[in-house]
Amino acid sequence: MLRNKIGVFGLGTMGGNLALNLASKGHKISVYNRNVNRVDKLLDVASKESIHTIKGYTSVESFMYSLETPKKIVLMITAGKAVDAAIEELSPFIEKDDIIIDGGNEWYENTERRQNVLMQTHQAHWIGMGVSGGTQGARYGASIMPSGDQFVYDIIKPYISDIAAVDERDGIVCETYIGTGGSGHYVKMVHNGIEYGIMQVIAEVYDVLRISYNYDDCRIADFFEDCNIGINSYLLEITANVLRKKTGNNASFVEAILDVPAMNGTGTWTAYDSFTTATSIPIITTSIDARRMYQAKATRTILSKYRDAPNHQIASCVLDRGCLKDVLLSSINMCYFQGFQLIAEKNRDKQWGISIKDLAKIWKNGCIIRSTFLDFYAEVDEDKYLEMILMTFNYSSYRHVLHCCIALGIPLPCISACYQYILIVTQDKSPANLIQAQRNYFGDHPITMIDT
Amino acid sequence: MLRNKIGVFGLGTMGGNLALNLASKGHKISVYNRNVNRVDKLLDVASKESIHTIKGYTSVESFMYSLETPKKIVLMITAGKAVDAAIEELSPFIEKDDIIIDGGNEWYENTERRQNVLMQTHQAHWIGMGVSGGTQGARYGASIMPSGDQFVYDIIKPYISDIAAVDERDGIVCETYIGTGGSGHYVKMVHNGIEYGIMQVIAEVYDVLRISYNYDDCRIADFFEDCNIGINSYLLEITANVLRKKTGNNASFVEAILDVPAMNGTGTWTAYDSFTTATSIPIITTSIDARRMYQAKATRTILSKYRDAPNHQIASCVLDRGCLKDVLLSSINMCYFQGFQLIAEKNRDKQWGISIKDLAKIWKNGCIIRSTFLDFYAEVDEDKYLEMILMTFNYSSYRHVLHCCIALGIPLPCISACYQYILIVTQDKSPANLIQAQRNYFGDHPITMIDT
Repeated sequence: MLRNKIGVFGLGTMGGNLALNLASKGHKISVYNRNVNRVDKLLDVASKESIHTIKGYTSVESFMYSLETPKKIVLMITAGKAVDAAIEELSPFIEKDDIIIDGGNEWYENTERRQNVLMQTHQAHWIGMGVSGGTQGARYGASIMPSGDQFVYDIIKPYISDIAAVDERDGIVCETYIGTGGSGHYVKMVHNGIEYGIMQVIAEVYDVLRISYNYDDCRIADFFEDCNIGINSYLLEITANVLRKKTGNNASFVEAILDVPAMNGTGTWTAYDSFTTATSIPIITTSIDARRMYQAKATRTILSKYRDAPNHQIASCVLDRGCLKDVLLSSINMCYFQGFQLIAEKNRDKQWGISIKDLAKIWKNGCIIRSTFLDFYAEVDEDKYLEMILMTFNYSSYRHVLHCCIALGIPLPCISACYQYILIVTQDKSPANLIQAQRNYFGDHPITMIDT
Repeated sequence: MLRNKIGVFGLGTMGGNLALNLASKGHKISVYNRNVNRVDKLLDVASKESIHTIKGYTSVESFMYSLETPKKIVLMITAGKAVDAAIEELSPFIEKDDIIIDGGNEWYENTERRQNVLMQTHQAHWIGMGVSGGTQGARYGASIMPSGDQFVYDIIKPYISDIAAVDERDGIVCETYIGTGGSGHYVKMVHNGIEYGIMQVIAEVYDVLRISYNYDDCRIADFFEDCNIGINSYLLEITANVLRKKTGNNASFVEAILDVPAMNGTGTWTAYDSFTTATSIPIITTSIDARRMYQAKATRTILSKYRDAPNHQIASCVLDRGCLKDVLLSSINMCYFQGFQLIAEKNRDKQWGISIKDLAKIWKNGCIIRSTFLDFYAEVDEDKYLEMILMTFNYSSYRHVLHCCIALGIPLPCISACYQYILIVTQDKSPANLIQAQRNYFGDHPITMIDT
């Protein structure tokens, strides 16, 4: 019997598209989904797209037997308990040297636990694989972040390469071996944290444009498109796209959406994890807090009666579009910077062997946070980031935008956190001597005196 | 043989003072410390203070045999591994119904784990007991937060009551049964998070006063003392005290201290834990980040050459002292508010049975964060906090102070986070509709349309 090369377990939007992507590259694949309807649905789509190398299975047993050994199985299911349940289902059929690749958004410690367990119980391998690019990336080329044992990665690399995006500018294939352990899921988690930060910064600027300038969505789209020249940010690009979208009644699509955001775990995990390291990522943690706070719509509505009337006298200053653009782009870059700093710090701690520059390269295309900002991180050493950012940091643009928005009462939590961050990291003489004096007073904590 | 009533294990500054406090109330106590010198030292101090009810022991065995059954032992040692090591040492001598009280700053999940283990292995009890008040509180009256089984608390209450502070205004003894499980250590952790927030807010205002007003430490002390009238904040009070302190050369003591702050785990844990709940506490998380960032003194010094020159034109506006006072006090209150919100949320989740009002009452004296702000939390229902705070929130004071300090380049991370928080929670129409549109575009995430 001629067996298939690789299997995909889980055919949600991401899994289904990833299966189509693999098969469209000529790989003979097996697919399985607990709800069998999804198998049929996927085979229909494949057939319509003239993709004939997918075989569907309706039991785990037949799915596993359809694969050549060592078996390679990509799990595309919800992180957490569902993955442990899948391991139990697969367990009777897992043999020595088999490779299971978890393509979900998993917490990296779960990945490391499973790597150990699978090796102990089956002498089989577990690869944690971050996948970014949304549903379209899964179908036509994603940014892919696999981690585990390098020799195992080498075995699966041909498949991963084929479904990765390619950066057209320099031909870089957007996948690479990230490092040992759960580093692949860790960097994907931080990728998502950066994404939350960027989306919040964009939302804040959108708020400024619609409140302060009274722009309609099309003019706001123009602004973001203009800012995106030379930046090629996917998130800025799609922001302009959605802002131009209309409802059936030819009204603004974005304006018709309820302003209550949803979120998955990865952004929050990034904030949470930063407090287990020495690295502060306030622009990212602030974006997570903002998204959580936006969720309380009913409370916001009730409390809005206590909102202060804007201070029109101060606000009469005309908000400068050039300053707003500076602030938008600098604050977006601050999200990348803080994210990469967190990864570098964790990598030192965990000894995963991550190359930050290689990681930045595979984020240059395929993934949600792709933009030319990544060129900087693909080239510059980590200990030079902040100095180089400061060399061109436009203080006066921040002062102008914050000044106007504080007067107008427009919330800018992330942009404000970005400016405060810059003020703190450049403050030679901090007020922390007072904090030390207080601690010494109430807790007998030691202090260091300055040599004078 | 007449046995002693209760034992204290661990005679560091906190443990030694707590032992003296217990014994000075007439309780016959046993004390033990691994380093025996500390036992001798404590007995010397006790003798000088005419306290004769302390007996010292040089082995765990003799210490444990000196106690009446069921034995009651207060552990006053560093949280974490040292506590597990102490359990191992004590284990051969622990009997059914014995009560071990952990008075350290422990992570609440460790406390809950030990409660279960001790019950299973020895049918003995573990009480997690938060203690605030620093070394002076331990000696003369602390704010004490015990948790575990209520009937166990009832047994040890006479000892705890005797070493607790008393609020002179209303006679309240600053200890109460907090709730089940690790709730005592949890609320102490958040207490410390609030403390970090308040200390950072004070440090920011100190920075404004010395940079913008060019005040010397004595004039800054005057300002804080003036602000503290009717507030009775311990932290404001000691801030004024340390600012008046002089070095041997009659120079400012605070100015002579190196501006690199130290920190223990509890503040960071509070920030970390908030991201496992639905509650955002940005003023507290920002204070943790600020303290971490101040630690990089060498980097700050190098990067200070990229600091922008203050914008003197804008900054020439005279900073109003009344506004600064408003902002100081409102921002301090925001630390309490966000801390109590986090406790209320966690309590709902864990079903610990905490009475927030009772907790606020025992923080009214003895502890580091005592102040008349706590009267509000001792009286008002949790779901009314924010509305009542907003009724008197002085937007224009924040606008004025932020406006000047942004121009001057004085970092105000917590004060700024406080203002941004108020703007978000009162914003009826948030920009999160754009975030939802983006998520829908790249990830097929569902959106809700407004009924129009």
